[in-house]
Amino acid sequence: MRFSSYELAGKPGTGVWEGSELHGLEAGAAGYPGSLDEMLASGADLAAAGRTLAAAAVVDLATLRFMPPVRRPYKILCVGLNYRAHSAETGLGEPDYPAVFARFASSLVGHGQAIVKPAVSDQLDYEAELVAVIGRRCKGVSKAEALACIAGYSIFNEASIRDYQMRTSQWTMGKNFDATGAFGPWLSTPDELPPGAAGLSIRTRLNGVLLQDGTTSDMVFGVADLVTILSEVMTLEPGDLIVTGTPSGVGFSRKPPVFMKAGDVCEVEIEGIGTLRNPITLA
Amino acid sequence: MRFSSYELAGKPGTGVWEGSELHGLEAGAAGYPGSLDEMLASGADLAAAGRTLAAAAVVDLATLRFMPPVRRPYKILCVGLNYRAHSAETGLGEPDYPAVFARFASSLVGHGQAIVKPAVSDQLDYEAELVAVIGRRCKGVSKAEALACIAGYSIFNEASIRDYQMRTSQWTMGKNFDATGAFGPWLSTPDELPPGAAGLSIRTRLNGVLLQDGTTSDMVFGVADLVTILSEVMTLEPGDLIVTGTPSGVGFSRKPPVFMKAGDVCEVEIEGIGTLRNPITLA
Repeated sequence: MRFSSYELAGKPGTGVWEGSELHGLEAGAAGYPGSLDEMLASGADLAAAGRTLAAAAVVDLATLRFMPPVRRPYKILCVGLNYRAHSAETGLGEPDYPAVFARFASSLVGHGQAIVKPAVSDQLDYEAELVAVIGRRCKGVSKAEALACIAGYSIFNEASIRDYQMRTSQWTMGKNFDATGAFGPWLSTPDELPPGAAGLSIRTRLNGVLLQDGTTSDMVFGVADLVTILSEVMTLEPGDLIVTGTPSGVGFSRKPPVFMKAGDVCEVEIEGIGTLRNPITLA
Repeated sequence: MRFSSYELAGKPGTGVWEGSELHGLEAGAAGYPGSLDEMLASGADLAAAGRTLAAAAVVDLATLRFMPPVRRPYKILCVGLNYRAHSAETGLGEPDYPAVFARFASSLVGHGQAIVKPAVSDQLDYEAELVAVIGRRCKGVSKAEALACIAGYSIFNEASIRDYQMRTSQWTMGKNFDATGAFGPWLSTPDELPPGAAGLSIRTRLNGVLLQDGTTSDMVFGVADLVTILSEVMTLEPGDLIVTGTPSGVGFSRKPPVFMKAGDVCEVEIEGIGTLRNPITLA
């Protein structure tokens, strides 16, 4: 199943896709199962909610606004340098432990919403990433148990302001400008994908030009590894995101560099999940 | 006013101090104004809530459990190397822009609760820090307006697992072990303190031995600077924390190094606010 979060006439809605049609319900409607945030937090039966939503009316895609599938995650754990070819292009080498940094929910935008280029920088870069969404509270998880903690997968364009990212040793500021973390268009449940979402092609197109073209099998630390390593340190909670790193081909490593500007359209596609598309606008 | 968050008989409570007595109400009681998280998010009048709480019965301190004053902040923005003498002791030099890293709410514990030394490391270090709690949603704030965005101040022991912190360039993992971010004992409203909580002595005592002894005037970036710099990048929201860095004297910079172990008691005192006290236990 593929679940989307949206807003329609000021109300939060949750929908499930049947082919290219979204069946959904908004808050206040009979049978509304809650937001994905709420369902994940309460341990609701997503399959049952999906059946209820599938029986609901089709939502007019022209009138809704897609929201991040999880609207307000408490943790957004991003992994740097997690693709072998990308580690090579940055010159930073392949890590033996994940370089983890944080985004906050205040940086998120949904599918179709604008990624905003701040006035203070011209170095807005794209990063195609696979997202794993945590479905159950867990700590100290073995690799064998790790994938059972995942509620689903999604797509992230982890747009980064490179000059702010590199201003100090810690990347946080360049990774947390408002409206730079595009996330969506939906949460695909694990049954739709290979275990750990491994072996999927992952691509970025900027204005139709292919700029990243990798496979999730090139990850240094796969999804099960990351759940194990992160949960050694911290309790993972429903709705937390693991944003698993980007393949080679990012803009700042190109010669000459490629950065995104107002009027551009950036697409991130992951095989078996879909395409996350966002226009770029000025702040 | 000084507000504490607590739990009593399984119920969340909010209290206000009159001298050494805590007057409070728990969820479900008539007049309960909500948690500090809820009051900050809704823009409630804290002074009015404080008057209501001050008229409530005294809570038995022996029966409650202190919680972090803000229980589940969406952002915990920590600033590294923000005291001149501490920058010098790490050998990393004084920054011209704040080195910002993140904690997540899953790492927090309240006053009196145990800071937990994980089994996987013996390098559990203390860090005394002043916390500024955001009181209103803000973006692009000038330095002149910055302090008006602060709901109050508190104390943090930003306990760090040094080997995990230094395993990669990003400090996130060593800063996010469960039950290592001690926060409390209360939120002091700004009228109790000098502007920006500047000029206050800040000290750490481990088992009564003074190990950090600084002043918040030694900060490279003061509270107003930090609100301005952070809000250039991201929208700050009510309940977000700015954890403003630690003075010199941390354990790993000592010769020989000092790390915390089970059975220790660590106290962080900030002049005009109070003392945050936590025992250390094993995971």
